[in-house]
Amino acid sequence: MRIAELSERSGVPIPTIKYYLREGLLPRGEATGRNQARYGDEHLSRLRLVRALTTVGGLSVATVREVLAEVGEPDVGLHSKLGLVMRRLPLVGDDIEPLEEDRERALALVTRRGWHFYPDHPALHALAVVLAGHREVGHSVGDADLDRYAEAAEGIAAVDLDRISGLPATEEVLEGAVVKTVLGDTLLTVLRRLAQVDESAARNLEGAGRRAARGD
Amino acid sequence: MRIAELSERSGVPIPTIKYYLREGLLPRGEATGRNQARYGDEHLSRLRLVRALTTVGGLSVATVREVLAEVGEPDVGLHSKLGLVMRRLPLVGDDIEPLEEDRERALALVTRRGWHFYPDHPALHALAVVLAGHREVGHSVGDADLDRYAEAAEGIAAVDLDRISGLPATEEVLEGAVVKTVLGDTLLTVLRRLAQVDESAARNLEGAGRRAARGD
Repeated sequence: MRIAELSERSGVPIPTIKYYLREGLLPRGEATGRNQARYGDEHLSRLRLVRALTTVGGLSVATVREVLAEVGEPDVGLHSKLGLVMRRLPLVGDDIEPLEEDRERALALVTRRGWHFYPDHPALHALAVVLAGHREVGHSVGDADLDRYAEAAEGIAAVDLDRISGLPATEEVLEGAVVKTVLGDTLLTVLRRLAQVDESAARNLEGAGRRAARGD
Repeated sequence: MRIAELSERSGVPIPTIKYYLREGLLPRGEATGRNQARYGDEHLSRLRLVRALTTVGGLSVATVREVLAEVGEPDVGLHSKLGLVMRRLPLVGDDIEPLEEDRERALALVTRRGWHFYPDHPALHALAVVLAGHREVGHSVGDADLDRYAEAAEGIAAVDLDRISGLPATEEVLEGAVVKTVLGDTLLTVLRRLAQVDESAARNLEGAGRRAARGD
């Protein structure tokens, strides 16, 4: 198909497609003339993927390029490859510098949960940054709440890994893991918001016997 | 304190502070001369709050202004006020238009969970958008996974509401709820990533008897 059709079918404007081509996010099409190229279904899939990761997942174009480059590189096993890909995903801004106490709390949590961890993993640093952010505005998260959140995260990670365990480290499997992690963060945020509405309504209407009516 | 000290103590550069003053995110200080003003601890707290919500929470300056304006308005009860504040939090880009089937799946999920919901709530629309994003890239989330994620979200929302139930709808309580929701989204993303590392390691090393060694 021509670039116009590619644009129409993907919903991505032509200038954006040209930008992705220049940035190497989308492979060049097959040249059919001096200024023309033909694109295939693989271009359409890739465009949709880039759009979903940026629009729904909130990733920058630069990050998408890095992550997809990592996905495309051959490697040994699924788990080591997954680790490399996931380390590329951005987690939190670096404007806030955690204190030693924030770092210690982050380390204490993963230790308390018995989590296998890497001391240099960006997520461990990010945890210290987020704890610092809470502390700085006077709304620190207590250990009990942190443990309950961590427990929920364990349940989520089990779902995440259940889907792909035992599969080979192909580009398709890794791409699926990236999509379900990045878009999944947004999905979980949305589900949390909806569950908060329900939880808030339940507590607000408790006096009116709502829970009793639901049989809770 | 002068603006220079405010900048030093908050870690926010002076030009940024001036920008926040212009945008109404930070109340004016007490004028002490033609081009000078004095700032108090309430300015310092507010600056730290704005920085945490933008840096760690990823909100735009415009959204922070809206949300904090809503927090500052008097209202009747905690739960109705919380609802108004939470509706102001951004969830997902609007570049992807969900299909009828995505909307139906979103509705089916909240119905299946027995969640109290509002048909016009932005989170319900956002859920349809996220489901559309997954579908468009060929990695739809199955109902079973969706239910397990929703269950985790219920556990998270219970923690969220436990902290504030029974408290009055003061600016401090509402501000805390915003911080713990917005920064909490980042916290949960980070915890998920750390739990994934553990889960991936556990499955990868299963053959080596790691789980047996842990006594699982």
